[in-house]
Amino acid sequence: MSAPSILPRRAIIIAVGSELLTPFRTDTNSLFVTSRLNDLGIEVTAKVIVGDRREELAAVVGEAMRRADLLVLTGGLGPTDDDVTRLAVSDALELPLLEDPSIVERIRQRFAKRGMAMPAVNRVQGQVLSGASVLPNPNGTAPGQWVEQEGRIVVLLPGPPREMRPMLDAALAERLEPHAAGARLYRRVLKIAGRTESDVEQVAQPVYSRWIDWAPPVSTSILAAPGQIELHFSVRATTEEEGRAVLDRATSEMTAVVGPDVYSTDGRSLERVVGDLLRGRGWRIATAESCTGGLVASRLTDIAGSSDYVERGVVCYSNRAKTEWLGVPEELIREHGAVSEAVGLAMAAGVRERANVEVAVGITGVAGPGGGTEQKPVGTVVVAVVGLSGAQVRRFLFSGGREQVKFQASQAALNMVRAMVGGSG
Amino acid sequence: MSAPSILPRRAIIIAVGSELLTPFRTDTNSLFVTSRLNDLGIEVTAKVIVGDRREELAAVVGEAMRRADLLVLTGGLGPTDDDVTRLAVSDALELPLLEDPSIVERIRQRFAKRGMAMPAVNRVQGQVLSGASVLPNPNGTAPGQWVEQEGRIVVLLPGPPREMRPMLDAALAERLEPHAAGARLYRRVLKIAGRTESDVEQVAQPVYSRWIDWAPPVSTSILAAPGQIELHFSVRATTEEEGRAVLDRATSEMTAVVGPDVYSTDGRSLERVVGDLLRGRGWRIATAESCTGGLVASRLTDIAGSSDYVERGVVCYSNRAKTEWLGVPEELIREHGAVSEAVGLAMAAGVRERANVEVAVGITGVAGPGGGTEQKPVGTVVVAVVGLSGAQVRRFLFSGGREQVKFQASQAALNMVRAMVGGSG
Repeated sequence: MSAPSILPRRAIIIAVGSELLTPFRTDTNSLFVTSRLNDLGIEVTAKVIVGDRREELAAVVGEAMRRADLLVLTGGLGPTDDDVTRLAVSDALELPLLEDPSIVERIRQRFAKRGMAMPAVNRVQGQVLSGASVLPNPNGTAPGQWVEQEGRIVVLLPGPPREMRPMLDAALAERLEPHAAGARLYRRVLKIAGRTESDVEQVAQPVYSRWIDWAPPVSTSILAAPGQIELHFSVRATTEEEGRAVLDRATSEMTAVVGPDVYSTDGRSLERVVGDLLRGRGWRIATAESCTGGLVASRLTDIAGSSDYVERGVVCYSNRAKTEWLGVPEELIREHGAVSEAVGLAMAAGVRERANVEVAVGITGVAGPGGGTEQKPVGTVVVAVVGLSGAQVRRFLFSGGREQVKFQASQAALNMVRAMVGGSG
Repeated sequence: MSAPSILPRRAIIIAVGSELLTPFRTDTNSLFVTSRLNDLGIEVTAKVIVGDRREELAAVVGEAMRRADLLVLTGGLGPTDDDVTRLAVSDALELPLLEDPSIVERIRQRFAKRGMAMPAVNRVQGQVLSGASVLPNPNGTAPGQWVEQEGRIVVLLPGPPREMRPMLDAALAERLEPHAAGARLYRRVLKIAGRTESDVEQVAQPVYSRWIDWAPPVSTSILAAPGQIELHFSVRATTEEEGRAVLDRATSEMTAVVGPDVYSTDGRSLERVVGDLLRGRGWRIATAESCTGGLVASRLTDIAGSSDYVERGVVCYSNRAKTEWLGVPEELIREHGAVSEAVGLAMAAGVRERANVEVAVGITGVAGPGGGTEQKPVGTVVVAVVGLSGAQVRRFLFSGGREQVKFQASQAALNMVRAMVGGSG
C-alpha cells in the first residue's frame, strides 16, 4: 500500500471496549492520539466510544467514514470473542480478513520465549484486512493495521497504552510525517513541582496572554494535579527551527517568572531529573520513608539504571523501626513526636550514615484519613534532606485523600533532593 | 408532553464542547449519566464527543437517533455563538425553536438579584424546541430540555456538573423512574491476579458463553492489564434480590473454574484484600524489596489504617544492603546470585526476624531494561513469602518494560502473601 497522496485533515477517534461504557472508566487513549494528530496539523472532529459489539461498531465506522478522512480505532484487537474490531472494520469497509501466517508465527514465538504454548484463541490475532499494512507490536501480541480506501485512512491500534503509543508514533512517522511538510504543531511542556495551580496561574497568565499576539502565536494550557503543574505551549510553525526558536523564547520568559520550581522543559519526569543529577555527580542516595510508605524509593527505581545510584531505602512505619534501623533516639520521638523536623532529620541522617551515601531523604507525616491532631492535622508532612555539606528540612500541609497526600509528599521530597543535588550539595 | 409509554433501553450520550477534543481534557459527565441510566436498566451503547459545530452535531444526533431510543446531550447550552446544541438538535429533529418568555424573564431576574442587567446574548437561552418540556436549572441560567419524537427521547443538559447532575436526577425521577418498575442493571467485578488474559479467557469463555441463555442473561467482559485481569458481569433484573442471586450464581461458577487466583468479588483492590486478611488475623508484615524498589510497601500503605499491620520495609538495591540489613550471607549471593530462590528466602526471613513480625515477603529480580543474562533474562523475578509455619518461593518471568515488570512482580508478591495469610499461615 502506497503512502496517501494527501494528508488527512479531519480525524475521528473510536475507542472500543464495553468497559469504557461503564460508570467507572473513561477513555484516555484518545488524549495521546489527539496530541499526535494535532502535531501533524490534523484536527480531531469527534470521538466515539463503543462497546464490544460487532454490528454497533461497524455502523459507527461506516458513519465516521462519511464525516472524516482519518479514523483511528483503539482497542478490541485481543484474542477473545470480545475483540470485534477486526471483524467490524471488515464489515464496514467490505474488506475480507485473511490470516497472515507470519503474524501467527511471531505470536507463537512470543509465547515460546516464556516457555508457553500459544493458546488456540490467539490465532485470530493474525487476521489482516485485505490490502492493509501490518503495524508491528513490539510490546504485545496484537499487531495494528493501516488500511486506505477511497482517500480515507483507517488505523487499528491495540488498547493498552504501552502497545498503542509506540505503534502510533512509528506509523505516523513513516506514513504521514513525510507529507506534513509545511505548517505543523510544535509543543513544549514545562513541569513544575511544589506549587498550586492558582499560584502558577497568577504569575503565568500575564506572561502567556501576550503570546497570542506573537507571530506565530503561542497558545498555552495548564494541566494541574496536586503536586504537579504542567504548562503546555504549542505553536504552529513552518520549520522546526522557527518552532523551536519561538518555544525557546516562551520557555525562558515563563521560567523567569515561575522560578526554580520548573524542573523540566524536555518532558523528563521529576524522578528522572533527580536520577540524572545524581548520576552526573556520581552520588548515591538512600531513603527513609514513613508516611510515603516506599513511594519515593519506588519512583526513583522506576528509572532504568537507577540501581547505579539508589543504594537502599527503608520504610519505617513503626517507631521501633525508626529507632532500631535508623538510630533515631526514642527520646527524640517522645519529645518532638514522630512527625517533626527533628525526627525527619534524624531519619535522613540515620539512613545516610548506615548506607554510607552522599545524600539521603527522610519523610514523616500524617497521610490520613486517621491520625491527625489539631497541631498536626492530616496532610502534615516533614521532609528532610541531608547531603555532603548540609541539611534542609521543611514542613508541608497537603490536602486531599491518602494517595494524594502520599504523592504530593513524594513530589516535595524529590524536589528538595533535586535542589540539593543540583545546587552545591 | 406525556410520559413515554415505554422505558428506553439503549442510550447514547453526546458530550458537546471543542475543549473536550483537545489533548488535555476528557469528558467525565458521561460517567455520572451512565450510572444513573444503568440504575434504571438503561444500557449506554455508545458515547460521542463532538465540538461546537452545528452541522457536525446535527449529523451525530441524526445518526444516534437511528441507533438508540434515548439521547442525552451535555453542554453547548450557554449564551454564546459557540453554544450550538439547541440549533443542532432543532436541525436534526426538524423541530423549530420558539422563545419561551418565562425563561427569559427568569434569567433576567437571576441577573437582577446580583444587581446586573441581563446581557443581550443570554436571550437565546430562552429558545425551546417545539413540543419540548423545559427542565428547570436552579444552579445556572441554561434550562434543560426533554423532547420525545417517534418513541425516542432526546434530553439536553448543561455542561457544568453542578447544573447537569441535579437536573438529570430530577428529570429521571419524574419521567422515567415511575416506568422503570424495578428493572435495572446490576454489576459485579471479579478480580484475578497472576494469570494472563488468554489463560483466563480459555477457562472462562466456555462458562460465561452459556450465561447468555439464562433468564435474565448475564453479559461478561474482560478487562486485562499485565498482572491484573478483571471479569465484569452485568445483568438486568427487576429486583435487587434477583440481580444479586443471578450474579452470585455467575460468581460462584466462574470462581470454580478460575480458582483461587480470584482475589476479590466486591471491588476491593489486592492491597486492601491483603490488608484485611492481615488485620483479621492480627498479623503484621515486613517487606524486603530489590527489583520492585518499594512498590509493594507503597501499595500496602495506600490503604488507610495500614500502619496497624505494616511494620517496616526495606529496599535493598545493593548487595551490601542485603547483607548488612537483612543478614543475607555474602556467600549465598556469590554462590546463587542476587536473583535466586535462596537469596529471596533469606531476604524475607531476614526482614521477618529483624522486624519481629508474623509474615514477610522478599523480592529480587531483573526489572530491566539492562542487567539480564541468558539464564536470568530481564523480567525474571523471585518472590519469597515466609510465615509462621512455613515458606513459599516462586520464580516468575514477566514481559514488558521496567514499570510493567515492577507492577507484575508486586502483584505476584501480594498474591502470594494473600495465599499464605488467607490459608493456614
